[in-house]
Amino acid sequence: MQSKTNFRDVFYISDGTAITSETLGHAVLGQFPIEIAQKTLPFVETVERAEQVKTLINQKAKESGTKPLVFFSIVVPEVKLIIEQADAHFYDVLNCLVDPLKRDLDLEPSPQLHRSHSIEKDAASYQNRIAAVEYTLAHDDGVSLSNLDLADIILLGVSRCGKTPTCLYLAMQFGIRAVNYPFIEDDMAKLKLPKEIEPYRFKTFGLTIDTERLMAIRHERYANSDYASQEQCEKELNRVESLFRREAIPYLNTTTLSVEEISTRLLELSGLKRSMW
Amino acid sequence: MQSKTNFRDVFYISDGTAITSETLGHAVLGQFPIEIAQKTLPFVETVERAEQVKTLINQKAKESGTKPLVFFSIVVPEVKLIIEQADAHFYDVLNCLVDPLKRDLDLEPSPQLHRSHSIEKDAASYQNRIAAVEYTLAHDDGVSLSNLDLADIILLGVSRCGKTPTCLYLAMQFGIRAVNYPFIEDDMAKLKLPKEIEPYRFKTFGLTIDTERLMAIRHERYANSDYASQEQCEKELNRVESLFRREAIPYLNTTTLSVEEISTRLLELSGLKRSMW
Repeated sequence: MQSKTNFRDVFYISDGTAITSETLGHAVLGQFPIEIAQKTLPFVETVERAEQVKTLINQKAKESGTKPLVFFSIVVPEVKLIIEQADAHFYDVLNCLVDPLKRDLDLEPSPQLHRSHSIEKDAASYQNRIAAVEYTLAHDDGVSLSNLDLADIILLGVSRCGKTPTCLYLAMQFGIRAVNYPFIEDDMAKLKLPKEIEPYRFKTFGLTIDTERLMAIRHERYANSDYASQEQCEKELNRVESLFRREAIPYLNTTTLSVEEISTRLLELSGLKRSMW
Repeated sequence: MQSKTNFRDVFYISDGTAITSETLGHAVLGQFPIEIAQKTLPFVETVERAEQVKTLINQKAKESGTKPLVFFSIVVPEVKLIIEQADAHFYDVLNCLVDPLKRDLDLEPSPQLHRSHSIEKDAASYQNRIAAVEYTLAHDDGVSLSNLDLADIILLGVSRCGKTPTCLYLAMQFGIRAVNYPFIEDDMAKLKLPKEIEPYRFKTFGLTIDTERLMAIRHERYANSDYASQEQCEKELNRVESLFRREAIPYLNTTTLSVEEISTRLLELSGLKRSMW
């Protein structure tokens, strides 16, 4: 039996993917000084499955000697009713906003199964998003500089400054067609934009990073290489940053930023219309 | 002035990326029969920026003749206070769960800026996630079948059945190292698993898709090609599905599923530990 005072079992439960419950639960729990063991249970759609889940929650309550915390979003009333009989604290992640909205809008909600992350929600936007992932993959790391007229954004930077994960996140979450191009020695000596990118400088942005951080990242890939040396990293960063300045390409330092933060800032900088999937 | 009764301006506002506010706002608004125009305002961290945002909300309220809906999460009290003076309905996406949690846990929360999607939250887990994206990219579409011992999951299927976007989503959102391998004519004639994958069948899963849907997707890429023909699609799908059955590889039909739903179901099937970023 776990007897640490501030330990809790946490469940994220949904009749859909449980992504919304999990995202929100994480964000809220991060504010409390507790240790947690988490379990996500998606697609709880039937009475039978609900009974299993109830049993699992009760078992954890018994083992730990404290009530588990359950963040959930379930539409079907019979399923919800069973889950709520478990020995736990319950947080209905959507309902706590649905009730005030209902009042303010003076409208009745019509809850729908699997609403948040299903294709049916908006098939055209889903297709566009998958097409954006494909476009972005085909234009990763300078592989192709064709069809740049179709790009929403073009990112430049030295090798390993965060371009690829950022582009994939932009495509996957926002349906944005993102091209990235790494500067190699040759471009840097000339300090010029590639001619294919020149006509699209209005949608071109730079990424940079602190020397220490770049050395650490490159070192992890090729330990003790010239590529990871302070001299090389410093030289590349200096050259590329002066290129950005000379060419008036807006740029961002990624050293302390996650892909979510880099992507969000790029959307702000570029004025691209943002819509989370 | 917009005068449709059920039209509303919607704002998602945060001192961080606003991803949590936007995700939740979408999920809740999807339940109401209203038309919306949405705007996301991340990184509202200063009094000056808050004043600008307040002005923008008030302007929209005036233009539309109805109060905008504001989904927000802001930690700094001075900033929050200014925003809340705007002429709008407000929904604090985290607080509606923080209050009951505070009561149930009998603990005080300590709200922190940029908590949800920052690197600082958990640097090791962030590095792991970026490494998973790199591994997954290097093992996309059969490009490499080396280091499969490091894979968390291996996906098989015909060309264009959803393997690549699913693998990238698994890597980006869950930090999972995902390999995907497309069957080409040659493997299918032999109806055998590639020998490199054979030792790892315990973590191998299949994706399949309905013929009509596959034809539509392939047609979009190569219109009127043999590749997109009913005969070819049917043949490939039949052969691959019988391979899955003969080799006892669990498989999933992706026809009506989003990458979120495919990924979530694969995590369930595989028993992989799930943790959203």
